[in-house]
Amino acid sequence: MTVTTHDIVDAQARIAGDVVRTPLLAAPWARGELYLKAESLQPIGAFKIRGALNAVRRLRPEARARGVVTHSSGNHGQAVAWAARAAGVPAVIVMPEGAAEVKVNATRELGADVIFAPGARRELVAEEVRADRGMAMIPPFDHADVIAGQGTLALEFLEELDEIDTVLVPIGGGGLISGVGVAVKQVSPGTRVIGVESELAADARDSLAAGRRIAWNAEDTSRTIADGTRTPVVGELTFPLIQATVDEIVTVSEREILTAVGVLARRSRLVVEPSGALGVGAYLSEPGGFGRAVAVVSGGNIDPALLAEALALPDLEESHP
Amino acid sequence: MTVTTHDIVDAQARIAGDVVRTPLLAAPWARGELYLKAESLQPIGAFKIRGALNAVRRLRPEARARGVVTHSSGNHGQAVAWAARAAGVPAVIVMPEGAAEVKVNATRELGADVIFAPGARRELVAEEVRADRGMAMIPPFDHADVIAGQGTLALEFLEELDEIDTVLVPIGGGGLISGVGVAVKQVSPGTRVIGVESELAADARDSLAAGRRIAWNAEDTSRTIADGTRTPVVGELTFPLIQATVDEIVTVSEREILTAVGVLARRSRLVVEPSGALGVGAYLSEPGGFGRAVAVVSGGNIDPALLAEALALPDLEESHP
Repeated sequence: MTVTTHDIVDAQARIAGDVVRTPLLAAPWARGELYLKAESLQPIGAFKIRGALNAVRRLRPEARARGVVTHSSGNHGQAVAWAARAAGVPAVIVMPEGAAEVKVNATRELGADVIFAPGARRELVAEEVRADRGMAMIPPFDHADVIAGQGTLALEFLEELDEIDTVLVPIGGGGLISGVGVAVKQVSPGTRVIGVESELAADARDSLAAGRRIAWNAEDTSRTIADGTRTPVVGELTFPLIQATVDEIVTVSEREILTAVGVLARRSRLVVEPSGALGVGAYLSEPGGFGRAVAVVSGGNIDPALLAEALALPDLEESHP
Repeated sequence: MTVTTHDIVDAQARIAGDVVRTPLLAAPWARGELYLKAESLQPIGAFKIRGALNAVRRLRPEARARGVVTHSSGNHGQAVAWAARAAGVPAVIVMPEGAAEVKVNATRELGADVIFAPGARRELVAEEVRADRGMAMIPPFDHADVIAGQGTLALEFLEELDEIDTVLVPIGGGGLISGVGVAVKQVSPGTRVIGVESELAADARDSLAAGRRIAWNAEDTSRTIADGTRTPVVGELTFPLIQATVDEIVTVSEREILTAVGVLARRSRLVVEPSGALGVGAYLSEPGGFGRAVAVVSGGNIDPALLAEALALPDLEESHP
């Protein structure tokens, strides 16, 4: 495989001390035995710093001096900015014109140069920056070092908890579940790895069923509130890893996602973004059906108004009579 | 002193493995260097399980068999129920008639017997249970084993972070700050220990200034939203420990408390109750004035509607121009 457990163990040594070893929190409110890997507690509020920092630290000295570039309006852009600062290298983040000011400011506060481009030209502009300045491109998921970095979170929970029956992981481009899948299947082959998508962005489910990468229309995937998983198709690198390590992909409704956001805030005192709540959404739809389960709570960057909306939804008992 | 660092180190060995070693999270959004000891991530959402479990485990075998009793409608009742279950002993929790159903159910789900009493007779009824059944009373703060248990959280952050200038700790009855104060002053005598109260329940400030325990009227202290700190007077045991270890007590307004709740949710992705946000509220009112600071985020059991209200308040920049 293009990414092995060996790569993930190496990544762990490379990023330890900078990323938070996030707690694995028991969820006693769940019917069944559920644990939450709370990556929402990472510095930028998402697991993405693991892969970004591993990729930046893997650069050769001459490449480090020139710095890194990526395009993203979301968690990945901030993750690359954060990782570049942690490694002491320059970073350029290309963001779409009209990106939310709070995200632009957050990226700049991390020390990155922000360049704006029309949404459709973001990738092109980032590519130009790469070519002109000799910067290294750090893609959001389809990169072996990024995948290996994300896998480090699985090493942590595998060390802390025995005999896990199921691991529930959100899927967007597949970087997270690829890394987690490789680590889990090596350390604990009997554990089921289940990917979770919104039913409004179920391209990974379709791809796994078809045996080839099926792209959804970006306009369609943009409908889900799970904005971290709107990627219309899994990666060239991640897809074979998903095929090799993922047992099943399940989908959840928008209502189930937002209910999970509310339950996580009320019952586990975690602020979680919709993408980060996918695993718990799947769990709630089949409580106890996953045995001893770990849900990867991947991120916590939610719009405060949407969180308030989730808090107003019915709680656990009412929603699961 | 009635509680020593030795007692706290013993307590740590006694409760490790059952309580969560909560993360010490950097707060990069703060002006200055602030770290959050996130006790809101404990199983029942509060530090109180540390003291309760230490007290229950310290009982002699014959006392354990008879079990434990306390009166509380809040975090302490659930903490004792949780600790009793963890230690395998029976528990009776006396709650006021009309207590919120969600709290009653949560306590029962932890395996405790819930007995109801009129608010004013709660203490008396608990005392009757103690006498009739020979159960051990576990008070919420004025007990050496409880104080020693709470102090264990300070050992954790003192191990993880050097050269702390200031520790900011909420004060209700003083159990938390007594334990934390003893540990901090022993391990790092140069660190300032600052207690934080609502200006609507500033009895500890008045007591420290007067050199004797000053009680506030319970009707007055009940006005603060920081419901975990409404205790009208600090304890007989905790007061001398506060005098010996606390450098200063500062007060915050209700608005500052709720602003801190909103900032913690938005910026650090933590669901925190008003009492748990007191330290951060004090920090925000004087950003950078505390040097390298640790705020003890003591609990996360907030009414969802109040959290939604906090999320609608202005964010950091707007509130601190």
